[in-house]
Amino acid sequence: MTFIEALRTILPKQEQVSVNTTVLEHHSKDVTSYHPGVTPDAVVFPSTTEEVSRVLHYANQNGIPVVPFGIGSSVEGQVVPVKGGISMDLTQMNAVLEVRPEDFLVRVQPGVTRMQLNQHLKEYGLFFPVDPGADATLGGMAATNASGTTAVRFGTMRDNVLGLTVVTADGSIIHTGGMASKSSAGYNLTGLFVGSEGTLGTFTELILRVYGIPEHVLAVRAVFPDVGTATHAAMGMMMCGLTLDRVELVDEHTVKVVNAFKETDFSEAPTLFLEFSGSRSTVDSSFMLAKEILTEEGCTELEFDTDQAVRTRLWAARHDAAFAFSASQPGKKLMTTDVCVPLSVLSDAIVEARRLIDENGLDGAILGHVGDGNYHAVLVVDPEDETDMNRASHVNAEIVRFALERGGTCTGEHGIGLGKAKYLTNEHGESAVLLMRAIKSVFDPNDILNPGKIFL
Amino acid sequence: MTFIEALRTILPKQEQVSVNTTVLEHHSKDVTSYHPGVTPDAVVFPSTTEEVSRVLHYANQNGIPVVPFGIGSSVEGQVVPVKGGISMDLTQMNAVLEVRPEDFLVRVQPGVTRMQLNQHLKEYGLFFPVDPGADATLGGMAATNASGTTAVRFGTMRDNVLGLTVVTADGSIIHTGGMASKSSAGYNLTGLFVGSEGTLGTFTELILRVYGIPEHVLAVRAVFPDVGTATHAAMGMMMCGLTLDRVELVDEHTVKVVNAFKETDFSEAPTLFLEFSGSRSTVDSSFMLAKEILTEEGCTELEFDTDQAVRTRLWAARHDAAFAFSASQPGKKLMTTDVCVPLSVLSDAIVEARRLIDENGLDGAILGHVGDGNYHAVLVVDPEDETDMNRASHVNAEIVRFALERGGTCTGEHGIGLGKAKYLTNEHGESAVLLMRAIKSVFDPNDILNPGKIFL
Repeated sequence: MTFIEALRTILPKQEQVSVNTTVLEHHSKDVTSYHPGVTPDAVVFPSTTEEVSRVLHYANQNGIPVVPFGIGSSVEGQVVPVKGGISMDLTQMNAVLEVRPEDFLVRVQPGVTRMQLNQHLKEYGLFFPVDPGADATLGGMAATNASGTTAVRFGTMRDNVLGLTVVTADGSIIHTGGMASKSSAGYNLTGLFVGSEGTLGTFTELILRVYGIPEHVLAVRAVFPDVGTATHAAMGMMMCGLTLDRVELVDEHTVKVVNAFKETDFSEAPTLFLEFSGSRSTVDSSFMLAKEILTEEGCTELEFDTDQAVRTRLWAARHDAAFAFSASQPGKKLMTTDVCVPLSVLSDAIVEARRLIDENGLDGAILGHVGDGNYHAVLVVDPEDETDMNRASHVNAEIVRFALERGGTCTGEHGIGLGKAKYLTNEHGESAVLLMRAIKSVFDPNDILNPGKIFL
Repeated sequence: MTFIEALRTILPKQEQVSVNTTVLEHHSKDVTSYHPGVTPDAVVFPSTTEEVSRVLHYANQNGIPVVPFGIGSSVEGQVVPVKGGISMDLTQMNAVLEVRPEDFLVRVQPGVTRMQLNQHLKEYGLFFPVDPGADATLGGMAATNASGTTAVRFGTMRDNVLGLTVVTADGSIIHTGGMASKSSAGYNLTGLFVGSEGTLGTFTELILRVYGIPEHVLAVRAVFPDVGTATHAAMGMMMCGLTLDRVELVDEHTVKVVNAFKETDFSEAPTLFLEFSGSRSTVDSSFMLAKEILTEEGCTELEFDTDQAVRTRLWAARHDAAFAFSASQPGKKLMTTDVCVPLSVLSDAIVEARRLIDENGLDGAILGHVGDGNYHAVLVVDPEDETDMNRASHVNAEIVRFALERGGTCTGEHGIGLGKAKYLTNEHGESAVLLMRAIKSVFDPNDILNPGKIFL
């Protein structure tokens, strides 16, 4: 019996195992990243935890690599089956299993996307806040410990995943965490699986924290003379204990490119994008204080609104930034840096990143989650052009070096995947990486779970 | 060379190794819990990470158990050296190493207590929010993933420990996490060590998140006709996205005992204790909305104030609850249950707990962290009285069963230690516990790190 025949006996329906070239190609790489693709030998579409378990049990016994796949919005090559084998597409497992409004939690399958979930939650007056930009699957978001613009208020995936059903390498089905909002019962397996990028197990169910939809949302665009004053203003607001849902920074050059591409006329200077939410009165009073701080810190232009359409327009230069760069150079790919630094060095880090980009003749946006110290230089690259790629890799490496020397991390929210594996030991030291490898060996002794990722 | 002589060659100063009977006795048990003590063979007082490393290296080579000790405020027997060996007292390592106000973080040694840290942070306008009641060491709080009254806003220790220096069983010194407020770089070792109760390594340094001291704090006492309406009111406030710093519930019988013991005259009915903080205007507007909800939900009596002295008086029935029960029966010990349940079943859980306590002829307070679904039945027991202990253990077991059947956890914040080990498999299932045990074996192959805890 061939490998494909075996998979067909494991999964009941014909369409659950595919070797179609287009399907294989679609599962070979991240949608937008620069990482070169590698086609899997087969793509499987399980529909239950038990089917995932049977596939893994078979793969483990036969030493076949298995790489989980959602919508492919990972940016560090996490979904690339670098050693071939099976791409496990979880998009058929896309049911919202249970909404528990009074418990502020939901149970979902891993293929549910965040927008799908929010659509579903609307009628309950609830929402799931983690927003990485892409309409990623929740399984994928948990796998990379994704976060995004709302982390300053709602935290990362790790803060919002309360429990998991996970199938480990040998096909064992385990349950971690639960429905309690906190627990001190034994080792934190949930937190270990979140961010493990498919290398410790495949998630087949998630219990997530959800929140009440706020009565009122206020969006703000605040322009500053330089990056330093903008970040300082953000810190001033945090110091006062102001509850900010989002605090984003876009640098001067990025606004210029957005203006050119979208024919807008935003002031071409470093800009903070803020969002407040809550009851009308709490939002108003928070914003009153914020306005005082922003003005004191040198804000030269301030626009704000609560209307959904106006809010979208106000935030356009933030939302369109990466797209403007990428769409202005069709056919190219993105190399997105992702360091996260202590807040006090964020301003210097961003200035240094812009200098590195310019000095190396590259083009790219700079976007920062200022509340977290996490920022991205979104470099537009041609993967076929070796000089281009070398320059971009050099800039990425220098940005990481700058961050690690100051106590930061090489990845705030995208994960290690293929692209950051070379920095893992620099960041954590050899002893810590040895412990990580030992954990990997315990969970996956035959190295079939997304092999070649995280560790060099 | 004897065991003690060997330790004396490892630690330079005479007073760093003690076999004094009083010292051994002090390190034999939790300060207030019912768990019987076991004296260690020696107590060591390391003053540096390197000394901790040398002690562990020696202990590992010789198969000697090592149990970390802070101030002994653990409640599930975590500090009891059940297999003898070394009690490692970390209170000499009590320096605040670095305060980074602009980064909202501090670096501390594990023996720093939370009140000591907050005293130190005052001049920077900062504070550390996690508040388990006792003035515990931060190392100990990290070890049990402590939380307390502020978790509803600021989370648990796991949410607030950004990085650790840990010495593992063989004396290796490893660094986890860092100064970035979030990271997706490899496996989350920090989150795995937090809550591991000394069974995976000894913490010698912690990087913690801190927050700006709010301008304004408002305390509220709100009386309700029954536990159901009180918890429902709390959920209503959370649904509106109100930022609450604390939401505590005390049941009717508990208020009665406080009144009798402290000669106060608080209304003898279920009472919510709330706290709001922020700028004056945001607190005012939050409270305005809260007042509306509380009234709508049937609140029969509402008192509030911003003055520190009045706030303390308002919260007295909450703060004095456990103390009133324990002090009214001198010489007895406490068995404190600690389940955490989905919010929707909290009210039923508390009513059931009171029924079980009454039915079994016990006495005890009931306190709930309503925002988290975590509540405590604080049972006053005589450890020498077998009947008393059996009844209390039965009530504890029934409270745990009720919680686990509804997706809750056997411990929200106290940890497993000795007292909850029998529930670990019930809660997580055999496969998950096997994984936990496998992790333990990787980190501590000779089982010298706090042996006999967490696992039966």
